[in-house]
Amino acid sequence: MSEKKVYRFDEGNAGMRDLLGGKGANLAEMSNAGLPVPPGFTITTEACNDFFVNEEVLSDELMEQVTQAIADLENRTGKKLGHPENPLLVSVRSGAKFSMPGMMDTILNLGLNDQTAAGLAEQTGNPRFAYDSYRRFIQMFGDVVLGIEHYKFEEIIMDVKEKRGVQLDPQLDADDWKKVIDLYKTLIKKETGQEFLQDPIEQLKQSIHAVFSSWNNTRAKIYRKMNHIPDDLGTAVNVQTMVFGNTGEESGTGVCFTRNPSTGEKKLYGEFLLNAQGEDVVAGIRTPQPIAELQDSMPDIYEQLVAICNQLELSYKDMQDIEFTIENRHLYILQTRSGKRTTQAAIRIAVNMAREGILTREEALMRIQPEQLDHMLHRRIDPDASLKTWAKGLPASPGAASGQIVFDADQAEALTKQGKKVVLVRPETTPEDIHGILAAQGILTSRGGMTSHAAVVARGMGKACVCGCEQLKIDLRNKTVTTEDITLREGDLLSIDGGTGQVFIGEVPMIDPELSPEFQELLAWADEKRKLSVRTNADNPSDARKARELGAEGIGLCRTEHMFMDPERVPIVQEMILAEHEDERKQALARLLPIQKEDFKGIFQAMDGCPVNIRLLDPPLHEFLPHLEELLVEITKLQVTGQEATPEYRQKENLMKKVRALHEFNPMLGHRGCRLGMVYPEIYRMQVEAIFKAAVECIEEGVRVEPEIMIPLVGHVQELKRMRVLVEEVAEEIMRQSQMAVSYKVGTMIEVPRAALTADQIAGKADFFSFGTNDLTQTTFGYSRDDAEGKFLHIYVEQGVLPHNPFISIDREGVGELVRIGVEKGRQVKPGLKTGICGEHGGEKASIQFCHEVGLDYVSCSPFRVPLARLAAAQAAILNK
Amino acid sequence: MSEKKVYRFDEGNAGMRDLLGGKGANLAEMSNAGLPVPPGFTITTEACNDFFVNEEVLSDELMEQVTQAIADLENRTGKKLGHPENPLLVSVRSGAKFSMPGMMDTILNLGLNDQTAAGLAEQTGNPRFAYDSYRRFIQMFGDVVLGIEHYKFEEIIMDVKEKRGVQLDPQLDADDWKKVIDLYKTLIKKETGQEFLQDPIEQLKQSIHAVFSSWNNTRAKIYRKMNHIPDDLGTAVNVQTMVFGNTGEESGTGVCFTRNPSTGEKKLYGEFLLNAQGEDVVAGIRTPQPIAELQDSMPDIYEQLVAICNQLELSYKDMQDIEFTIENRHLYILQTRSGKRTTQAAIRIAVNMAREGILTREEALMRIQPEQLDHMLHRRIDPDASLKTWAKGLPASPGAASGQIVFDADQAEALTKQGKKVVLVRPETTPEDIHGILAAQGILTSRGGMTSHAAVVARGMGKACVCGCEQLKIDLRNKTVTTEDITLREGDLLSIDGGTGQVFIGEVPMIDPELSPEFQELLAWADEKRKLSVRTNADNPSDARKARELGAEGIGLCRTEHMFMDPERVPIVQEMILAEHEDERKQALARLLPIQKEDFKGIFQAMDGCPVNIRLLDPPLHEFLPHLEELLVEITKLQVTGQEATPEYRQKENLMKKVRALHEFNPMLGHRGCRLGMVYPEIYRMQVEAIFKAAVECIEEGVRVEPEIMIPLVGHVQELKRMRVLVEEVAEEIMRQSQMAVSYKVGTMIEVPRAALTADQIAGKADFFSFGTNDLTQTTFGYSRDDAEGKFLHIYVEQGVLPHNPFISIDREGVGELVRIGVEKGRQVKPGLKTGICGEHGGEKASIQFCHEVGLDYVSCSPFRVPLARLAAAQAAILNK
Repeated sequence: MSEKKVYRFDEGNAGMRDLLGGKGANLAEMSNAGLPVPPGFTITTEACNDFFVNEEVLSDELMEQVTQAIADLENRTGKKLGHPENPLLVSVRSGAKFSMPGMMDTILNLGLNDQTAAGLAEQTGNPRFAYDSYRRFIQMFGDVVLGIEHYKFEEIIMDVKEKRGVQLDPQLDADDWKKVIDLYKTLIKKETGQEFLQDPIEQLKQSIHAVFSSWNNTRAKIYRKMNHIPDDLGTAVNVQTMVFGNTGEESGTGVCFTRNPSTGEKKLYGEFLLNAQGEDVVAGIRTPQPIAELQDSMPDIYEQLVAICNQLELSYKDMQDIEFTIENRHLYILQTRSGKRTTQAAIRIAVNMAREGILTREEALMRIQPEQLDHMLHRRIDPDASLKTWAKGLPASPGAASGQIVFDADQAEALTKQGKKVVLVRPETTPEDIHGILAAQGILTSRGGMTSHAAVVARGMGKACVCGCEQLKIDLRNKTVTTEDITLREGDLLSIDGGTGQVFIGEVPMIDPELSPEFQELLAWADEKRKLSVRTNADNPSDARKARELGAEGIGLCRTEHMFMDPERVPIVQEMILAEHEDERKQALARLLPIQKEDFKGIFQAMDGCPVNIRLLDPPLHEFLPHLEELLVEITKLQVTGQEATPEYRQKENLMKKVRALHEFNPMLGHRGCRLGMVYPEIYRMQVEAIFKAAVECIEEGVRVEPEIMIPLVGHVQELKRMRVLVEEVAEEIMRQSQMAVSYKVGTMIEVPRAALTADQIAGKADFFSFGTNDLTQTTFGYSRDDAEGKFLHIYVEQGVLPHNPFISIDREGVGELVRIGVEKGRQVKPGLKTGICGEHGGEKASIQFCHEVGLDYVSCSPFRVPLARLAAAQAAILNK
Repeated sequence: MSEKKVYRFDEGNAGMRDLLGGKGANLAEMSNAGLPVPPGFTITTEACNDFFVNEEVLSDELMEQVTQAIADLENRTGKKLGHPENPLLVSVRSGAKFSMPGMMDTILNLGLNDQTAAGLAEQTGNPRFAYDSYRRFIQMFGDVVLGIEHYKFEEIIMDVKEKRGVQLDPQLDADDWKKVIDLYKTLIKKETGQEFLQDPIEQLKQSIHAVFSSWNNTRAKIYRKMNHIPDDLGTAVNVQTMVFGNTGEESGTGVCFTRNPSTGEKKLYGEFLLNAQGEDVVAGIRTPQPIAELQDSMPDIYEQLVAICNQLELSYKDMQDIEFTIENRHLYILQTRSGKRTTQAAIRIAVNMAREGILTREEALMRIQPEQLDHMLHRRIDPDASLKTWAKGLPASPGAASGQIVFDADQAEALTKQGKKVVLVRPETTPEDIHGILAAQGILTSRGGMTSHAAVVARGMGKACVCGCEQLKIDLRNKTVTTEDITLREGDLLSIDGGTGQVFIGEVPMIDPELSPEFQELLAWADEKRKLSVRTNADNPSDARKARELGAEGIGLCRTEHMFMDPERVPIVQEMILAEHEDERKQALARLLPIQKEDFKGIFQAMDGCPVNIRLLDPPLHEFLPHLEELLVEITKLQVTGQEATPEYRQKENLMKKVRALHEFNPMLGHRGCRLGMVYPEIYRMQVEAIFKAAVECIEEGVRVEPEIMIPLVGHVQELKRMRVLVEEVAEEIMRQSQMAVSYKVGTMIEVPRAALTADQIAGKADFFSFGTNDLTQTTFGYSRDDAEGKFLHIYVEQGVLPHNPFISIDREGVGELVRIGVEKGRQVKPGLKTGICGEHGGEKASIQFCHEVGLDYVSCSPFRVPLARLAAAQAAILNK
């Protein structure tokens, strides 16, 4: 059966992204819209998948369709592949459904060989152009198809330039390029044992092969994983008639964005280079001119470009990233796609497009990936600090970063794993550096413009980036970066401001981010759409205030253990734990009471008018005592040195006894949560007393308090029943003493499977359920998070045993099923039962989507995740309409 | 509202046990059957519960009904309570729904005071009897109602006997008893500040109060807990006209069983004492005569007794424990109840009664508590050993026991908690000793007969007991036990044979038990009824053989980690773990392979023709390495003593690195189970290779093998999918090499909640599910068994937060719900999916009942639990018909 595997551009349309890839679909759309697109055809993603099934062999059937498409192209262009006088030259580019810029391979100028190069020289009267094009082709083919390292070609050019005594490529003439070509051929012979391939159809076949293969190169795989792109989509291949920006000063090539991808400003943004091929711009080897300058040099072309940009943006309802080439004063559009952008820009563009009527508000909301909002909340350099700028480059991706200088990506990754912060400093970056960019706080390059690799990738990741900082001299061998007078070395501290392009020596003071009006507006729209309430996890007034600023509607989880871990309080807490009798314990607790009360007052004040959910003490008591191993070493040392009669030894021995008594094999499943309150009710009693005394004092000050007392780790209704009685007794006592009413709720965490399975019973005693899905994930899978992530979980995720890390995004089938059962059974008994989720899942998009679907009332997350949650909740509501 | 709280004996019947208690219902039944029961009435258990609700006050309403019942009794007997010439005397006894022998209080001879004692002396012409009775009443009332310690009364008698120069109670005359009475009254005045109570109605009221209260005394609570008797049943109180066994040599009192409670033999069994009251027999203070001797002394009475025994046994369809009194050659039946018996006796009686047509087979099966069967499997003294008997007592409860001598119950409990085995040696035991009997391996008393407290309780608990070993002199103060020539001290080793009454010095050789034909028959009947198959957990050939002997139909869990822990193999296992590379690891595994193969061969041979379910390696690898703390101490010592340059130090440091790398915070939830096989597939591959090589060699030898490969701790179907591929690959390779087919299954443990929740997916890749309910309980509750049981779980069970320890008996609501979900979802996808349970729950009655209800195919338990499981499975089938 001969399926259609090859589509002429005019046979497709924008809706065929699955089959033709994003680039192919857009080329088709533009062709049909009458835009000046050089003709060509697309080999489908299905062909790519067949190729992998077929053990990386291109089928005869496919090659037949390709040959026919080439014949058709020859007809349309009047040129002929391999024709010595009028040769057809084509580009071969990858193009997957989702844009993966720079991740896969591209070959330009295909069709050149010794004969056609000579023919092209003659035909164009421009031998320099023809041989420059030919050497570029050999170079790309050598690199991509034959696997010869890039630098070996660059070395040859450098040698030739040296011998000619020139510095820049444009200074080389046709003969120089011919010399380069000869040397390239020698290199290829040496590396592969074969002459450079002269048959254009065979060149094409091998190039298609290489582009398909590049779908599975390492950097593409990493990129897909990072961006959650499935591995089985495959890439399409676009074969397009070449147009040349390097035929002379009437030619050029460029990239432009319909709006500013860094700020979102509605203004054409981009760069171009005259007398150059596209790769020169993107690769960042030469620093290009701003797009505005095109207006001066070629006003007609500029006008045409602006009109096309507007047309494309309206057509795609999104900011476009457009590649164009000018060949002898003719404009060609080589590609359009939705442009990568910073979060700041994404928000501004989405909000503005909604205001402009291009998008609806719901569409605008769906345009922002919730996790991007994180980037908006990055700290920035304090504008009031008096700082001395060391150097200045292009503001390629906003945000500020400080860290140690590193000069290569592997080192960046290694140091980051050790917990260090680094800034990656490179002359330019390539797709090989992607893991280093991911690891670094920020990226600084000495070459390349706003659309260079480093800039595009950094913006996509929300990393600070300064590009094209040409005053820096980077010496990779000696690991130094130098301006005229100052040299910094690897490990020295450096700061960059990606919003201004400034580079500073050392660390600089940072402040909290300022949120743009567009950001506020977008979230206000989100608030209108969402059904889920959004709360925050906070256990101190400053976090609580921050979260309210970011839109939190209450506290969903106030942990009380951090209060116990304050260094000033630890001695009292230890006294309480080491107490031999209940009386002693109560004395220590009495000293903690006023401190706890102040903790809660501060939080109630910060959350005036909002519910505050306070979880009673949860961790096992041994967490507050010295570590067993440390004590053991100290005791052993005292023993070996014969100090067993000293008071110090006796004191440590005593402490050790208690530490041993409290020691647990599996603390995660041990004596913690409400099991503490059941065995030592006096601890919970003190906490409840502190809460209600704080509430009463707040009410007296006019603060509106809504305490919710949360009993952790309930597994059996009897636990909640008894703890509820305890809370009610203390509450009533304080209310009686103060003659004041405090309205409060008592509920529980649902964080062990048994609680979810018996939620009908538990609901009878609970005013609310808060699903503690971190612990619930641990118990449902039988994974200790501390152990699993380092020992086997990363392997499970890498190997696809699990679709994702269930601690990051909720496991719907298992953990989610328990949440569903819990909600259902709970509401059977108590229809109005308030349900929420606290913990990390409450700030993760897919988990929030799940919470919406399962009908929870709220999610609670850390303060800086609140905007994300607001947006994700809105998107969930929109998607589930 | 005046509810009926008091029933005349002839107003009740045997069906009213809830309301009247067992004793009351039986007295009613016997009264109506025309047996010679002294008249009386029963105060209901409801009255007891009212009493506790009413803060331990007897309501006026109740006392009115009691007064009326007394009046009625006076009418029927012609006697009158408190009448100086013709006094009515009554006994006041507890009687709960379930017999709790000796746990609650009893008062006899109530109605005696100074006046009525004199009247009784005159009326009977037997002042000695009258004053003996009076002093007994004062003594019991003083003890039970007034709370004066028993020994204080005994001291008075001893003083009087000493002054009179006599040794035995019967040698005291009426005047002596009057002297005792005076001294008793002085004691009471001194202890309570009040004169001894003379008003019989007030005596009665206080006695009823005391008996009700005794429902909640400590020993009764412990007994109920041990026997799973609910605390809210309450006790009835039986008030019955006194008859006297202590009026002279024509009188007596006794206890008899309709069959032998120790062996089950169908022959009247019991003891009597002439001229004594009932307490004398039961308390074990005087050693009574065997019942057969009654035939000689009073043949008519004996004949009447035998007839009544037969009548009662037929009527109750069970062996009866009957208390009788002979008053001046008149036989009275004071009580009948189903007799406590050894398991051996219980089985023999049930089987014989079925054979005799008294019971159906199903009824016979329901008569045995499955957990009792454990006792039958106790080891016994090797009959071929040449042993010297040190002393000989009564064979009160069969079984053999060896242990250190202890002389009091607290000490027995304390030493047992330390892991020591003890034999409790006492002159006699009382209900206060019950915790010591529970703790001890066996009980040896110097006084008391076959129906003494020690004997009855020991039989109930299945403990070995030798009673009435009168040649022993026990000195509790100096903690010695002495025969003529030998003195043993606390801590010395002693052995007893409760089946023969022999006592030996030191430890004696033991052998496995022999199972009686009745035992075999009963279990054969059970096999006919049960639906559940019964397998065993065994990981060596000898356990496997033992289990088959006991009826196991296969192995449900063969753990492979014990094979790894064999001391000779540990070095190879450690080598495997410490290997830096896969190659090294494979070398170590290659050395383990032939050893593992032999392990499996032995098991297959022992299980010829039965399925053998082998679980691949489950525990975390660090379990095979030295303990971190020990290493830390050793390393610290080497550091302190400046030996850091030694090879020893370096070696230990290296080991420590690996131990630290493998160390886990929560090993229960860590890198174990199939997570090992996923990360180190070579380990599982070796095990599977060993299994199939063993299988092939066995088949060659004519052994029929049915291996089932079990993948532990699967939480996601992908794990099972991959491990299944691994098993199949290895299996096919071995079968190909050997040119032999091995039929096998691959399945999984369901032991984390996620596995149960996604059982539909997992079933697609599993031939069987084995529910690992120990781990499932840990993860469902979030309890680490190692930590929970010592830290809070015992408190939860004691306080009734949990109805029972969920590790012992399955938690139906939570863990059971997951099992139900797992079975249901699994069978949705694969209707014939084989399901079972392995682990401790598989050998526990209530859990087996649950397994039957939920539709599992089999249970698997330790070898000695197999008979229990067979019976429990049959009972489940009978109950759920």
